[in-house]
Amino acid sequence: MNLILLYESDFISEDKVRLNDYRAQHIQKVHRANIGDQLKIGRMNQLMGSGVVLQSDDKGVVLRTTFDQQPPAPLPLTLILALPRPRMLARSLQHISTLGVKRLILLHSQRVEKSYWMSPEVSPEKIRDNLILGLEQAKDTVLPEVLLETQFKPFVEDRLPEMVTGTRGLVAHPGSPDACPRGLTEETTLAIGPEGGFIPYEVEKLTEAGLQPVHLGERILRVETAVTALLSRLF
Amino acid sequence: MNLILLYESDFISEDKVRLNDYRAQHIQKVHRANIGDQLKIGRMNQLMGSGVVLQSDDKGVVLRTTFDQQPPAPLPLTLILALPRPRMLARSLQHISTLGVKRLILLHSQRVEKSYWMSPEVSPEKIRDNLILGLEQAKDTVLPEVLLETQFKPFVEDRLPEMVTGTRGLVAHPGSPDACPRGLTEETTLAIGPEGGFIPYEVEKLTEAGLQPVHLGERILRVETAVTALLSRLF
Repeated sequence: MNLILLYESDFISEDKVRLNDYRAQHIQKVHRANIGDQLKIGRMNQLMGSGVVLQSDDKGVVLRTTFDQQPPAPLPLTLILALPRPRMLARSLQHISTLGVKRLILLHSQRVEKSYWMSPEVSPEKIRDNLILGLEQAKDTVLPEVLLETQFKPFVEDRLPEMVTGTRGLVAHPGSPDACPRGLTEETTLAIGPEGGFIPYEVEKLTEAGLQPVHLGERILRVETAVTALLSRLF
Repeated sequence: MNLILLYESDFISEDKVRLNDYRAQHIQKVHRANIGDQLKIGRMNQLMGSGVVLQSDDKGVVLRTTFDQQPPAPLPLTLILALPRPRMLARSLQHISTLGVKRLILLHSQRVEKSYWMSPEVSPEKIRDNLILGLEQAKDTVLPEVLLETQFKPFVEDRLPEMVTGTRGLVAHPGSPDACPRGLTEETTLAIGPEGGFIPYEVEKLTEAGLQPVHLGERILRVETAVTALLSRLF
């Protein structure tokens, strides 16, 4: 946790928060902060700044807050990710949030097992928890928006074309003729398939919707590795 | 497992292997392969090719092997990684091997807890197991070499300068003035610090040894994310 993320409900006055959950524990046990120490803080979806420890005891931690810094720039990206299996979803959400993605669509596809949609990891609370872990890691305050699209065809036919308009559209697909571009600055829409990839029909539909198939080389990456590798190469 | 990796001890004749460990189970339970099916195979540190299932029963799997394909090109890189904590080491080794690193040095540094060196994850067998998982994922046969350097100063003063000579030397260090370069093709030596980074003294010593400090942006990445992000951006 490189940043203590604060919520409206933490404030006990205009410039003071009281914490008594895992954040207080982290401040006491990992930072071993003393009265007067400064910690990096951020206000959910708002500015970052510093918090001075005013009180730290078995009732928790009180910080005096100052907010004076913009969070880091978001990636200019809408990421469409075929729903990974639950354990990989958790880690992928953390990476995605750490790397600065702010719009994420989790999509069904042929090679996504239907049971994955029933996993507790797909609940709004667990998704949010994992995204917050990523923000606390990166030092960022802006929670990504997440949409769940449980049906491939209506999403790709009816909603994707408009979403892609005016952006650079890409779908990561091993074996495509074109290599993934590097160092983009324009708005981008990127789709990443499940383990085993999108099926040919899906690649065709995604291409029709405006996404260009691109590859990352001969090596087959796990989804969580591919997410980080693609984002790091693209931006 | 996208490739069944074979060892000399698996061969029962010039072009036949018998498997009865996790690979046989994978062929039977995940691939659900039938007699006559073809599977992607590779011979440790040698060629890749295909294996035809000749026999599959409770005694294991027999494949007829053909080797006709070079493994994917290695990255032109020596990676120096401050020893991560054990669980992160396991995952980092898998990513490193999947991404095509062939020379890895695990290095002690101030912010590496000494106890990490005692972990079972640092044993040659566990390191090898994790590297093999990465090869099976990527479809590669060439096992990375791994060196353990448990003392920072003698390594950086006595051995690193020669290692860096003739290569592009880089050390990933958040807050450096220069951004990490992209799309390199030359031989490169890259050092990545532990959680919390190298200490200033270490960055100075690494710089004296010929490594240029570079950053990946404002966001603070976990070691395993940073490894993938750096390799994907550099090559």
